[in-house]
Amino acid sequence: MQFPPPESNNVSSSQNASSITRRNYDQVRESMHSAISMNKTEILDAALNDFSEGYFVLPIESRRKLLVTLAREYDLSREQVRELMKQYLGLELPSAVDSGHEEEGSFSAFYRIERNLRHSLKPMYEVLFERLNTHPGGLRFLSIMRADILSFLEEENIAALRALDSYLKEKLITWLSPANLQLHLITWDDPASLLEKIVAYEAVHPISNLLDLKRRLGVGRRCFGYLHPAIPGEPLIFIEVALMKNVAQTIQEVLWDDPPIPECEATCALFYSISSTQPGLSGINLGKFLIKRVIDVVRKDMPSISTFATLSPIPGYMSWLLSKLASAERSDSTFKEHLLKPEEESALIDAAGELATGKNGMEVMCKLLASPKYEWTNSAQLMSVLNTPLMRLCARYLLQEKKRGKALDSVANFHLQNGAMVGRLNWMADRSDKGLKQSAGIMVNYIYRVENIEENVQSYFSKGQTQASPDVRIYLEEDHEETKD
Amino acid sequence: MQFPPPESNNVSSSQNASSITRRNYDQVRESMHSAISMNKTEILDAALNDFSEGYFVLPIESRRKLLVTLAREYDLSREQVRELMKQYLGLELPSAVDSGHEEEGSFSAFYRIERNLRHSLKPMYEVLFERLNTHPGGLRFLSIMRADILSFLEEENIAALRALDSYLKEKLITWLSPANLQLHLITWDDPASLLEKIVAYEAVHPISNLLDLKRRLGVGRRCFGYLHPAIPGEPLIFIEVALMKNVAQTIQEVLWDDPPIPECEATCALFYSISSTQPGLSGINLGKFLIKRVIDVVRKDMPSISTFATLSPIPGYMSWLLSKLASAERSDSTFKEHLLKPEEESALIDAAGELATGKNGMEVMCKLLASPKYEWTNSAQLMSVLNTPLMRLCARYLLQEKKRGKALDSVANFHLQNGAMVGRLNWMADRSDKGLKQSAGIMVNYIYRVENIEENVQSYFSKGQTQASPDVRIYLEEDHEETKD
Repeated sequence: MQFPPPESNNVSSSQNASSITRRNYDQVRESMHSAISMNKTEILDAALNDFSEGYFVLPIESRRKLLVTLAREYDLSREQVRELMKQYLGLELPSAVDSGHEEEGSFSAFYRIERNLRHSLKPMYEVLFERLNTHPGGLRFLSIMRADILSFLEEENIAALRALDSYLKEKLITWLSPANLQLHLITWDDPASLLEKIVAYEAVHPISNLLDLKRRLGVGRRCFGYLHPAIPGEPLIFIEVALMKNVAQTIQEVLWDDPPIPECEATCALFYSISSTQPGLSGINLGKFLIKRVIDVVRKDMPSISTFATLSPIPGYMSWLLSKLASAERSDSTFKEHLLKPEEESALIDAAGELATGKNGMEVMCKLLASPKYEWTNSAQLMSVLNTPLMRLCARYLLQEKKRGKALDSVANFHLQNGAMVGRLNWMADRSDKGLKQSAGIMVNYIYRVENIEENVQSYFSKGQTQASPDVRIYLEEDHEETKD
Repeated sequence: MQFPPPESNNVSSSQNASSITRRNYDQVRESMHSAISMNKTEILDAALNDFSEGYFVLPIESRRKLLVTLAREYDLSREQVRELMKQYLGLELPSAVDSGHEEEGSFSAFYRIERNLRHSLKPMYEVLFERLNTHPGGLRFLSIMRADILSFLEEENIAALRALDSYLKEKLITWLSPANLQLHLITWDDPASLLEKIVAYEAVHPISNLLDLKRRLGVGRRCFGYLHPAIPGEPLIFIEVALMKNVAQTIQEVLWDDPPIPECEATCALFYSISSTQPGLSGINLGKFLIKRVIDVVRKDMPSISTFATLSPIPGYMSWLLSKLASAERSDSTFKEHLLKPEEESALIDAAGELATGKNGMEVMCKLLASPKYEWTNSAQLMSVLNTPLMRLCARYLLQEKKRGKALDSVANFHLQNGAMVGRLNWMADRSDKGLKQSAGIMVNYIYRVENIEENVQSYFSKGQTQASPDVRIYLEEDHEETKD
């Protein structure tokens, strides 16, 4: 989250502004020091307030400077660590534990130095994190601070700042453990101040108006959020669920077209949106626990529901495909990857008419897909010839394209690592501009089969295997057969 | 007909019973191992359930054996720690940070090994703690486990078990940080399952019946609990508050005698009971934060309330005094400490009549106070002669008797370290058997003056000073003057 810097960048006031900035910085630097070094028994709250309030009014450059100072000057004492290490290495290691416990006493020194070392390996800034965590509003402040750190690290890799981030991330993981989070069923009876957060943070399918929101919280729908007691009234992450007879194929039917069915007839819980609200919690997988908890709750409340599935976007598909097509065009013909089958290529060129003049199939496809107004979706013929290659390549993208052993698509990776399988690809499932831009309108159902979740997680992590239904695998088997010919 | 317990100690079945115990132990040991060593991605919940359920049915001796095994065999790898230390000591320490940051890069190796060391200094059993913490019911189980550890340590000091306890305690402190706790105003509208906990755990003034409970939650009263989301419906600690015109002098008027006043007339919030519910959280000071939070809430809600005070027991007074009296009797006359002033002694001997034959004043006092039915409280004359020395010595006990620099009385230490001052001693303030036994019926008001809290905390910790009002100090000043004569 970005807070606008308080001072204007007008030339006339720039000198004045810079001295104000300087003064502000020094004050915040000072309050940060107090918040870390004050004795436990003194009044800390004022220092913590000054620090967090001061931080918000600092311009982004001063924040960077402050955080780098925190990382470098409130680190651990390496002298002390080395001293303890020397003591430890001087101890004689007792013989193996299973040789009997007579040597119990000789372990005491180990326990003592290990304990001291754990403490001296804590950087001084841990005190600030711990104090902020127990200070009203502090956890939220830490999450904003981490969002800043992450954005600074994207610009420049500073080792000390990276160490600070990694330390803060581990702290946040502990503080935000599922045991500390409350599952809250969000309803139309919740305070408007909470509901407005849902509207603001819905990242997948924007909520257009109050009626839209009310429908998402009404009959046949559920919305669950994870709340932390220190950040009241603002879910850290939330998931929207539709209770349906069958796994939906398009987002239109979920959001607008079909009226909800009587809940007693539902056999499927469809997760159609999951949104995080805190950029500062990036890399902390709260969604995994949220989905598990929601499945448990829904199964218990509604035993007739046996299918848990998502209707998910494929946010990286088009950018992957367009770059593949472009790089295929640039390659010389020997190494060119033929993304299209011959009959797909000729159908495309036929359908494209004069737009295809002098171009090969991949060039035509690239041109059609990249057109800013998605004109191809207005032509039944173009839609029909694009359908086959787009669906086939989408299956390949989801099942086979990897980055460090994990699915290249971020949403796919999220659900696969949580134990889902790729269930079905849905053509023209999201006709919004966003849907067409991300994935040519294709959406995917990931299926959570309770009995297979752990198994799937394991084979995904250990063997990099992506589980998929026969409906999806068939796209690739055809592919395989074709290339064999 | 009697059904024998499954592990009866009859000679005929004892062998059988011991083999059942053995089998149970092995199963729980096995599930503990699974709960620690299973890969993150496998089904852990079953192992954690087996372990915690199995633990509950184990006899106490098997629990001890299991926890010692956990402490010893799931410790850290000292070989790995030593290896990392050697690497670390081999690094060249870059010059001081403030000499410029060109050497940024050379710190990377330090950050990396420090991070690895932090991880390898975590004992293997941390995994179990972490997993239990995020497992339903796990936090509660950990608290029960720690209660067991503490009781085993009381019997025998086993270094490995002490290290386990100290590690678990630090974990619990983190998990139970105030940021994770919710302040809940407990009312008559709360579920009976929660209210029954209040009845069960009220440790200071037992709740005699439903009417008594209802009164403690009704008009002019407040009861606040700290709840953790993972232990729903069971406050970890709770405090009972009476809204009054003046600081109460006896517990009778708070609990039974006086009807509550209209809340708008209240100027004092009296904390008359604070109880922890979890013996496994011993040494983790939740009460301090609870009192601070409650003061904040009450001040905000009721600005007319300006005095925050307790009406507290003095649980250690009688046992201290009786042992002082006994040891004075045993000492030879040269070193005998004269606990009584001459006029107190003669008044006592006069009043005691034939009971005092051949005894000195301290012996008489000892005999009167130790009488199991507190007969002295039935005699106005005995009450009157005991009043002066009991009040004076009580002030000395609270203000001057220390153990490692802290007040000897546990309740005094609790409030003094939270920033209270000793405000007033109240004669015959608790005439219950418990009150007479603990403190000859004397109770004390500790006063929390918001503006002095931090100052008091500091002088208590750094200089061992106990703040007290003139009303209390006067007992000791008289004492001083007398001895000068």
